[in-house]
Amino acid sequence: MKFMDVHHGMQGITADQLREAHDADLAIQSEERVTFEQAWADPDSGLVYCLSDAPDAAAVQRIHQRAGHPADEIHPVPLMI
Amino acid sequence: MKFMDVHHGMQGITADQLREAHDADLAIQSEERVTFEQAWADPDSGLVYCLSDAPDAAAVQRIHQRAGHPADEIHPVPLMI
Repeated sequence: MKFMDVHHGMQGITADQLREAHDADLAIQSEERVTFEQAWADPDSGLVYCLSDAPDAAAVQRIHQRAGHPADEIHPVPLMI
Repeated sequence: MKFMDVHHGMQGITADQLREAHDADLAIQSEERVTFEQAWADPDSGLVYCLSDAPDAAAVQRIHQRAGHPADEIHPVPLMI
């Protein structure tokens, strides 16, 4: 199942910080059978969107929490184009 | 510039309806130099996310409005992984 998760409050995030956060997820994602596929950030609004493939939303959140950046929203996105 | 836009209130959206909405965008997107790249939908929460490449957020919204489904949020996402 694919998931879109959203982080709030990331105003001012830089490309390096996004990369560092993503790498922290990638380093441990296999322990929960999660694959983070893409991430997009808007430093002005402080929103970060992450697309993943995972067994369930809880697995996504466990990885994000352990990496130090829990998601504010996690939505399954069963429909894709 | 890449943009992530979000539609609310799409509870119950089907794969066919997502495809139809996306096709309506694709049919006219070139008139605003917008390229809709991907879309994801969660029928339970009614959220739809669209990733596009566009000159600005207003161009994205003009296409969505003309296609009959204005976005509730449009965020530039200058950072991507």
